[in-house]
Amino acid sequence: MIKTDILIIGAGPTGLFAVFEAGLLKLKCHLIDALPQAGGQCSEIYPKKPIYDIPGFPEVLAGELVDNLMEQIKPFQPGFTLGERAETIVKLEDDSFVVTTNKGTRHNAPIVAIAGGLGSFEPRKPLLENLAKFEDKGVAYIIKDPEVYRNKKVVIAGGGDSALDWSIFLADVASEVTLVHRRNEFRGALDSVEKVQHLKDAGKINLMTPAEIVGLNGKDHLESVVIRKTGDDSAINFEVDNFIPLFGLSPKLGPIGDWGLEIEKNAIKVDNTLDYQTNIPGIYAIGDVNTYPGKLKLILCGFHEATLMCQSAYQRIFPDKKYVMKYTTVGGVTGFDGSKKEAPKAVVKAIE
Amino acid sequence: MIKTDILIIGAGPTGLFAVFEAGLLKLKCHLIDALPQAGGQCSEIYPKKPIYDIPGFPEVLAGELVDNLMEQIKPFQPGFTLGERAETIVKLEDDSFVVTTNKGTRHNAPIVAIAGGLGSFEPRKPLLENLAKFEDKGVAYIIKDPEVYRNKKVVIAGGGDSALDWSIFLADVASEVTLVHRRNEFRGALDSVEKVQHLKDAGKINLMTPAEIVGLNGKDHLESVVIRKTGDDSAINFEVDNFIPLFGLSPKLGPIGDWGLEIEKNAIKVDNTLDYQTNIPGIYAIGDVNTYPGKLKLILCGFHEATLMCQSAYQRIFPDKKYVMKYTTVGGVTGFDGSKKEAPKAVVKAIE
Ligand SMILES: Cc1cc2nc3c(=O)[nH]c(=O)nc-3n(C[C@H](O)[C@H](O)[C@H](O)COP(=O)(O)OP(=O)(O)OC[C@H]3O[C@@H](n4cnc5c(N)ncnc54)[C@H](O)[C@@H]3O)c2cc1C
Ligand SMILES: Cc1cc2nc3c(=O)[nH]c(=O)nc-3n(C[C@H](O)[C@H](O)[C@H](O)COP(=O)(O)OP(=O)(O)OC[C@H]3O[C@@H](n4cnc5c(N)ncnc54)[C@H](O)[C@@H]3O)c2cc1C
Repeated sequence: MIKTDILIIGAGPTGLFAVFEAGLLKLKCHLIDALPQAGGQCSEIYPKKPIYDIPGFPEVLAGELVDNLMEQIKPFQPGFTLGERAETIVKLEDDSFVVTTNKGTRHNAPIVAIAGGLGSFEPRKPLLENLAKFEDKGVAYIIKDPEVYRNKKVVIAGGGDSALDWSIFLADVASEVTLVHRRNEFRGALDSVEKVQHLKDAGKINLMTPAEIVGLNGKDHLESVVIRKTGDDSAINFEVDNFIPLFGLSPKLGPIGDWGLEIEKNAIKVDNTLDYQTNIPGIYAIGDVNTYPGKLKLILCGFHEATLMCQSAYQRIFPDKKYVMKYTTVGGVTGFDGSKKEAPKAVVKAIE
Repeated sequence: MIKTDILIIGAGPTGLFAVFEAGLLKLKCHLIDALPQAGGQCSEIYPKKPIYDIPGFPEVLAGELVDNLMEQIKPFQPGFTLGERAETIVKLEDDSFVVTTNKGTRHNAPIVAIAGGLGSFEPRKPLLENLAKFEDKGVAYIIKDPEVYRNKKVVIAGGGDSALDWSIFLADVASEVTLVHRRNEFRGALDSVEKVQHLKDAGKINLMTPAEIVGLNGKDHLESVVIRKTGDDSAINFEVDNFIPLFGLSPKLGPIGDWGLEIEKNAIKVDNTLDYQTNIPGIYAIGDVNTYPGKLKLILCGFHEATLMCQSAYQRIFPDKKYVMKYTTVGGVTGFDGSKKEAPKAVVKAIE
């Protein structure tokens, strides 16, 4: 069982920054995210787009912001359980919580901070009869470790940035990459579209458009997919090791909706007069996932909420200690890894 | 009379960022600050020190943060009344406010946002009998325009960063710079102390330590200062054009304390359940200057408060309009100067 001080569900910008504020209070954090990488919506939906309303950044790419946050929290060595969805929560005798994921990983902490954004990102799946049978047996909706596909025959389906970008990436890893899309047109960043065009011209990616996957075959493991060209009645059986439909992810509040928390407009109601705590003491909700009068689903608001939440968590964990806030400029930042950042002190020196 | 949508008192980080959020709502801002430059505590107290807890910046110099904020708000062309302290407020028939400074400048707006931090920075003054008589007539406590001192004989008093840095700067501007300090030791950034040492060795700065200014003489304008060396009974009369005591600034809530606002612990009580409004409708307080349960005097909290305040101000100015928030990534930023920043759109393109 993974043990920590604050268990954060959701590794979006809000959850990440909470690690920093907790670290200043010497509290350790562990994050769970359904996605294979940190950054939430910023990494998953628009990593290469600029954001203009992060204070102090006239312009910053969403992906850069996440990189910066990862760098900022590094001294506080957060733990990560990635690619797993938090499913159930149980309260123990000692008032701490145990959160278990869909893969069975168990986490224990006195404080749970839900920073789940719009919910856990769930892949949009194609409507294929025996799809479930091949999940994790040749079929995957998100790519956690590209090495899994080394020297494999891979079919990717989809027409957006993920389908384009992973086709490009896997062209160098897999033995064969086939990209199947319902239309001739792709929708993505200009250079991704152009790169796929080049790889296709160079014979490094097979392109099948307009076409669709209409069936899956295999005994235990996937062995072939059935591809039908649009407007064509006949279909071909195409031997593959892996089929990766990349039709985008859609967020669902999901299992958290059944944890006994007060829900309003698909978000978790919190006490904004003090600390963004939910109706269950010890469980907080911060960032896009919460709601209160005047709530704005903005990144900068999540930062503030995370900060106030950590103060309250500290009081809950150490009811008898009085925490005196110290400016980082004055007190510096002392990492759990022994690192120390500190502002240069003024010197006192005689001039002769 | 200066007219604007939101009149912001205090041009610290909170007030500056409010300009940005207001701008996204197409509201114009004007800022008043007692200091000659924007940036509040960041610019005045620790411009060269790093801050570690601004989200997305593992480390940023306070002065850099202010520069970035100025750059970020540029498209929204804020007005500034600098070097003047907001003194009085009057409510007009039409529910708008008129704020007048100590220099008599008048400002009119339907919304007033007090972002006054710890209060307006007031210089610590030396205890000299006829000091007031020479204020603005040879004596100044803050330097607004160094050109005023070109080819003048200047005496600076003090032992900290300002005294050191302005002595260095004016060495090239004034005809003669004399630095007087009670001690032999100076307290400041290492390179400032060393630069003064060099300038002294090169004969470009006169140093008088340990010594004190004990008197001022002159008819209408300052003509000389009386300097006494510590431990010495005799004093010398030293001819000068200007005397600049730089003993630091201390913040005072000052006149705002008499505006009928609810005050608690030297800060303005606000409604944190919604929009950081004070007990006077139309007047908000954001950043270090406000207080509410769980308040933290942190820059990132001021950013959040400014953002929610602007939404509420918009509703007050346009009670009948429904504002639909648009992400900057999606809607871009359209400046009042006609500038437009926008994320590149995904292209839709056929691959042949
Ligand atoms: C196209 C676009 C443009 C945007 N532009 C801006 C902008 O300009 N400015 C701005 O401020 N905001 C913008 N936003 C919104 C911004 O991205 C969100 O406010 C921000 O991502 C919220 O951060 P968060 O950490 O609260 O949640 P999220 O980023 O949504 O992260 C939540 C994470 O929690 C995970 N999660 C949820 N439930 C579970 C569970 N049960 N188990 C495991 N993991 C779970 C999810 O997988 C996700 O990774 C934009 C959003 C989009 C889509
Ligand atoms: C040494 C030091 C280190 C710090 N380190 C950190 C840190 O690491 N992280 C962090 O988050 N914070 C830190 N802070 C605190 C941070 O600087 C403040 O939270 C921040 O400056 C508050 O911003 P503000 O805009 O609300 O107010 P301020 O920066 O105080 O600005 C208020 C402005 O209002 C003006 N004003 C007030 N009243 C009037 C009036 N009547 N008329 C005209 N002008 C007026 C003042 O002159 C001032 O310029 C530090 C502070 C200090 C002193």
